[in-house]
Amino acid sequence: MREFQLIEKIFKPLTKGCDAAQCLADDAAKISLKKNEELVISKDVMVENVHFLSDDGGFKIASKLLRVNLSDLAASGATPLYYMLGFSKTKDCDEKFLREFARGLKSVQDEFDLCLIGGDTVRSQEKFFSVTIFGKVKKWQILSRNQAKEGDLIFVSGTIGDAFIGFTKACESMKYFSQRHFFPTPRIELGKQLLAKKLSKCAIDISDGLLADLRHICHASKLDAEVFLTKIPFSIHAQKILKQVQDGGRVCSHPELVSGSKFTTLDLLSHGDDYELIFAVNPKNRKKILHLAKSLKLDLTCIGEFKKSTQKKFEVVLRNEKNQKIKIKKFGYEHF
Amino acid sequence: MREFQLIEKIFKPLTKGCDAAQCLADDAAKISLKKNEELVISKDVMVENVHFLSDDGGFKIASKLLRVNLSDLAASGATPLYYMLGFSKTKDCDEKFLREFARGLKSVQDEFDLCLIGGDTVRSQEKFFSVTIFGKVKKWQILSRNQAKEGDLIFVSGTIGDAFIGFTKACESMKYFSQRHFFPTPRIELGKQLLAKKLSKCAIDISDGLLADLRHICHASKLDAEVFLTKIPFSIHAQKILKQVQDGGRVCSHPELVSGSKFTTLDLLSHGDDYELIFAVNPKNRKKILHLAKSLKLDLTCIGEFKKSTQKKFEVVLRNEKNQKIKIKKFGYEHF
Repeated sequence: MREFQLIEKIFKPLTKGCDAAQCLADDAAKISLKKNEELVISKDVMVENVHFLSDDGGFKIASKLLRVNLSDLAASGATPLYYMLGFSKTKDCDEKFLREFARGLKSVQDEFDLCLIGGDTVRSQEKFFSVTIFGKVKKWQILSRNQAKEGDLIFVSGTIGDAFIGFTKACESMKYFSQRHFFPTPRIELGKQLLAKKLSKCAIDISDGLLADLRHICHASKLDAEVFLTKIPFSIHAQKILKQVQDGGRVCSHPELVSGSKFTTLDLLSHGDDYELIFAVNPKNRKKILHLAKSLKLDLTCIGEFKKSTQKKFEVVLRNEKNQKIKIKKFGYEHF
Repeated sequence: MREFQLIEKIFKPLTKGCDAAQCLADDAAKISLKKNEELVISKDVMVENVHFLSDDGGFKIASKLLRVNLSDLAASGATPLYYMLGFSKTKDCDEKFLREFARGLKSVQDEFDLCLIGGDTVRSQEKFFSVTIFGKVKKWQILSRNQAKEGDLIFVSGTIGDAFIGFTKACESMKYFSQRHFFPTPRIELGKQLLAKKLSKCAIDISDGLLADLRHICHASKLDAEVFLTKIPFSIHAQKILKQVQDGGRVCSHPELVSGSKFTTLDLLSHGDDYELIFAVNPKNRKKILHLAKSLKLDLTCIGEFKKSTQKKFEVVLRNEKNQKIKIKKFGYEHF
């Protein structure tokens, strides 16, 4: 498929005729805001064999691409509006891949009510995709990493580590894990409610790993964080697998991991790809968070507390059931 | 250099402390607008061995990357504000490359008064860079491809084909051509003045080739275009080289071109990378355009006219000095 056809057939329908896209006829898109609004923008790039495998197929790759970007908006408390797509066309990029890719984008667009407004198509040897995503917040109302306060409780949404188990392919028979790996749920509504109900000013989404991303808050807010391993929410499925792993029954089979290696509970905290939110809550709002969890039908779990950083190291301290400090070798995924 | 260092040392200084960047501490940037403003956004991706060679070095690659993106804003008549950068780090990407790359970005930032507000860094096998650029226009005042009217004159800024000659490396001894190839001048001030002085509502920048990009206007505006070859502005340097080529004295030596092959005048109209503006002007404004050219110290040349498209082909007709139609084999660069 040539560039013109690709844009007309595959991408133009994804604009849903929205004004900002200018029918994809110009190189530029345009966005208007109401006077009490601010635009929130994030940009993420995904590369073959780093963030996805070509075998994953267009639908899964596109879904994850957009969901991961939406998660950045969730962490800001923003309402999704639009996105732009940088699309690289490799030689093996056939019409089937393109149609599946577009179907993946559309399914996420429909779920989160956003549309494509522009981008660029290039040819390359290696597959990569770049998304710039746009959302809106009310002026001065945005969740940031540097807004945690001493004594704030550390909350986390959903469950941790499922995406990692999906990634290891340790349990390919269980669709649950691969779903969590390929189709993370950006916590858009949670981010918006935290702002609207004034329950938090500080959040981050877990892309690099619970411990690594929590440490980002610590650095930005100049605080330490104390986390209790026993409080970290794992899904029933993950708990089961962790027990099997400990019993020697499950091993990794993902090509990027040492085949046959086992993983531990700590791996689940340091792999990332959870796309859950970590957020800071004043203890007086604890009950309101529990109400919010109920109304969103989403687990919101207190896993620890932000503390004054006496040594100015802005570190994450992880404690076991005996309140002992657990040594952390790896905090999270490192890009390079 | 690890990711954290790369961001702190190389990219953070490029934010110039602007509010929108949020110190690069969050994944998201935020932009506010005044109530009578609209945001104009464009996204361009550049890939190694397609848009640049690794040998070109960080300074040239970064300069071109940003200048090409700025040219999209120029074609909209927008004032540059910010940009986001998707940066891929390959194995051969050493500190020297990174510092040169940052120096390239900074030089363009300083010239056009914009700053970095965010982005993403990834590792990859192949070098590629993605920029999302942001500018502003007054509400409802934007240059678009679909606003040419029957009878409008076709103007073009600067000179055509210099970048192509630079690209062919046919004349490496002449710095002029490689400067035009690596350091195109986005016609920001021209775009803004065309809007401010109400001299045009329709423009495009020449990235794919004069003929191909003019055809984009024809398609969007549903008109034909008649262009006279003798009116197309070539630089004195290009005129000289064209004569030498015709005399058999110059040949291409760029690895992507057939070594030893010659180019013709038509190649200069269909290669692209000029980043000059083509714009439509009502004949009554012809004199005002000449005044504008004087005040901007920039050649603005009328090369033809938009005509009613009787056959609805929306085509570009190129005529020679005898008013004969010249057959065009290739209109412009095709991405794939």
